[in-house]
Amino acid sequence: MRTAPDNAVRSFVAEHTADFLGELEEWLRIPSVSADPERAPEVRHSAEWLVAALRRTGFPVAEVWETEGGPAVFAEWPSGEPDAPTVLVYGHHDVQPAAREDGWATDPFEPVRQDGRLRGRGAADDKGQVFLHTLGLRAHLAASGRTAPAVNVKLLVEGEEESGSPHFGALIRAHADRLACDTVIVSDTGMWSEDTPTVCTGMRGLLDGQIDLRGPDQDIHSGSFGGAVPNPAVEAARLVAALHDEDRRVAIPGFYDGVVELGPRERELFAELPFDEAAWLRGAKSHAALGEAGHTTLERIWARPTAEVNGLHSGYGGPGGKTIVPADAHIKFSFRLVAGQDPARIRQLVTDWVAAKLPDGIRHEVGFWGEGTRPCLTPLDHPALRAQVRAMGRAFGQEIRYTREGGSGPAADLQDLLGVPVLFLGISVPSDGWHSVDEKVDLDLLLTGVQAAAYLWEELAADWAREPWPAAGA
Amino acid sequence: MRTAPDNAVRSFVAEHTADFLGELEEWLRIPSVSADPERAPEVRHSAEWLVAALRRTGFPVAEVWETEGGPAVFAEWPSGEPDAPTVLVYGHHDVQPAAREDGWATDPFEPVRQDGRLRGRGAADDKGQVFLHTLGLRAHLAASGRTAPAVNVKLLVEGEEESGSPHFGALIRAHADRLACDTVIVSDTGMWSEDTPTVCTGMRGLLDGQIDLRGPDQDIHSGSFGGAVPNPAVEAARLVAALHDEDRRVAIPGFYDGVVELGPRERELFAELPFDEAAWLRGAKSHAALGEAGHTTLERIWARPTAEVNGLHSGYGGPGGKTIVPADAHIKFSFRLVAGQDPARIRQLVTDWVAAKLPDGIRHEVGFWGEGTRPCLTPLDHPALRAQVRAMGRAFGQEIRYTREGGSGPAADLQDLLGVPVLFLGISVPSDGWHSVDEKVDLDLLLTGVQAAAYLWEELAADWAREPWPAAGA
Ligand SMILES: [Zn+2]
Ligand SMILES: [Zn+2]
Repeated sequence: MRTAPDNAVRSFVAEHTADFLGELEEWLRIPSVSADPERAPEVRHSAEWLVAALRRTGFPVAEVWETEGGPAVFAEWPSGEPDAPTVLVYGHHDVQPAAREDGWATDPFEPVRQDGRLRGRGAADDKGQVFLHTLGLRAHLAASGRTAPAVNVKLLVEGEEESGSPHFGALIRAHADRLACDTVIVSDTGMWSEDTPTVCTGMRGLLDGQIDLRGPDQDIHSGSFGGAVPNPAVEAARLVAALHDEDRRVAIPGFYDGVVELGPRERELFAELPFDEAAWLRGAKSHAALGEAGHTTLERIWARPTAEVNGLHSGYGGPGGKTIVPADAHIKFSFRLVAGQDPARIRQLVTDWVAAKLPDGIRHEVGFWGEGTRPCLTPLDHPALRAQVRAMGRAFGQEIRYTREGGSGPAADLQDLLGVPVLFLGISVPSDGWHSVDEKVDLDLLLTGVQAAAYLWEELAADWAREPWPAAGA
Repeated sequence: MRTAPDNAVRSFVAEHTADFLGELEEWLRIPSVSADPERAPEVRHSAEWLVAALRRTGFPVAEVWETEGGPAVFAEWPSGEPDAPTVLVYGHHDVQPAAREDGWATDPFEPVRQDGRLRGRGAADDKGQVFLHTLGLRAHLAASGRTAPAVNVKLLVEGEEESGSPHFGALIRAHADRLACDTVIVSDTGMWSEDTPTVCTGMRGLLDGQIDLRGPDQDIHSGSFGGAVPNPAVEAARLVAALHDEDRRVAIPGFYDGVVELGPRERELFAELPFDEAAWLRGAKSHAALGEAGHTTLERIWARPTAEVNGLHSGYGGPGGKTIVPADAHIKFSFRLVAGQDPARIRQLVTDWVAAKLPDGIRHEVGFWGEGTRPCLTPLDHPALRAQVRAMGRAFGQEIRYTREGGSGPAADLQDLLGVPVLFLGISVPSDGWHSVDEKVDLDLLLTGVQAAAYLWEELAADWAREPWPAAGA
């Protein structure tokens, strides 16, 4: 097996940086805002631009895949090596809405390089992080003298991620054979900070929906009837209050069954991160930390399941008072789930729990916005993860630390539908302004990411050659 | 002391019924809707009409009293008797809004007599019940051969009751000397039913307001921050849930201190009323009874203090879901209070309780819509109440039973500011449609009420002659 000497990768990347950034800027100029129906042609234009760019990179297969919504891009570059593993890179080519009037320093779709950064909508989320794989692959080939990658590389770049990936599950199911792989690399996440390169090892799942309570058939007078019939506002509050116990643990029976607890090593690794809680609270626009007893803030947002109330509405909300018992109450809720929790099982637990909690005279419905998103988690000792950490270590020249992602994303669909472990290779940092004004990517980090991507293929191939990886969840 | 023989009162009332109803209909044609600024001239017209009618009745003093809002009417007819007690009758001449388009069978301001009923806005609430005192007084004089009533009669008829009596306290304070009296008769309530004449012995007090909670400075992402910072929707729910214990008693420490508990005799009297809980629930548009353990529904709505939530609003309320931790939450609450509870003290208890309940990171404000309305209660053995029950018994020829009023009204201002006990003489029944379409008054009940009012003055005078009554709350 040929291994690329590190200086060869570095010099190839340096030589081709100008062209690479010029091309990326061209892509950033295409306003592929999936949430805006008027920009559907731009989303298509973005997909077609990417197909052309991937062909120029050398992918023998690069094509647009249609969905019921915005088009995705698929590309494939088989390895020359027999028995090489297959790796699927995931990203997205659509972007969040952006307009100069929102407060951008310059036109969000006219990228600007300034102070070592590239500013523009999609620079970090996610065009920059998708595009780094093109130069990464070329550096891998050039430095190792190969004509094809050390692993079978596949690329799936969706066009509706910023709109909630409504057709992504169907897309994967429709093309399951062509997407077959041994691991997925998600390049749509970030790192702890410029100084602390990290690898994300999992995302939480999500189950959200609404509980509707109905009491009286209409609002009734509280002086005449209050205190003698059930009040939906009060019952909704009692339900929400019962969601957590005094330790702020979720109090729905069975909720924690099967939860993969943090091991002592992972808790230690989290604790070693340079976490400044006061600064984090400022970022959270919040004035105190509060959560499950016995866990730190990082553990709470990354590795613990939660129950949140996103909306609670009942009765009169105008100025002054109105002495009524409201007719109904509505609770919007979201559960974040961690490895070991199945959204379908939690759904049943929640449904049963609500029914058991409510008094006579309160009718109710529990609805969910979908089947839920499953959590994903790659164990610290998974060989593919260890290979990625080695590749990143070579690029950054630093110890790579571990994080997780508190949010939820389509990564879990890839894990579950393809049955493989998911790795996260991201070089964006929290200050990059995802979904916000003046989104940017740090050019040093972007080019270091290109190098990490270059080393990744040979590290994965070498590891696989020693022993093929276990499947997801195994 | 001359006492009117019952047949004399009956025949006088019968002789003058036609004129009495004709005049009442004239008054009902004046649309004195206090809530509608465009009808302010009609409210004034109504006051002036009443002054003229009271002068025709024989009141030597009858005048319009100005307020910052709609005008009130005051009238006075001194007794010829030395040492006679002074009795102030309270009612209101303004009415609720009404329009044919709301579903009225006929024009709400064109009264119609049909099936033994007089239909029209204000027929029961409250013009009919005010006006019965005119014929009542004349019957009292005619049957007893007097030229002046057996007691000093005063009348205060406000013009803003249906708008919350915003200037009533100020009006009483401004005219405290002329309103001085030994008891107040409120004629703005009802009876149990056509078959069960009752006297109301008290109204509950009211304290209402709003609690505002603020957590994050703006809505924040629940995937990134949820479960690690306090959520105002959850904290509002925990606060509301903590309002009641598992027995549905109000759980604010000190809330029940001083509460005048129902005695065994009054509980027995409530229990004897022909109460049909299923029918009551239909009237409450509710599907189950629920309230303070150890008390019946009637006890709960009439004689027990309650805490109700009239509105609860936090976070996202649109279609579908939105994974946020809301920035704020708002609770609209109302407490009904009973004798022994002082709104100012409850206000302090609520304010302290909220402050003690909330976690760090949740800022809050507790506001009240006013100083609150005090409860009022006349003990069953109060001699003035016993005199009223005798007068009603003579008119109805039936045992008079006891009720209370769950709502709150300006009666308590009269009790507190004038320092006298309050009696309630009302002949309206629940089916009269107060504040609703097709408001009506039963003509038999109205004319029986005229008789009760006629007997009332001599019963009160006779009782007072034996021994003057104790003051309010004494
Ligand atoms: Zn993204
Ligand atoms: Zn009224």
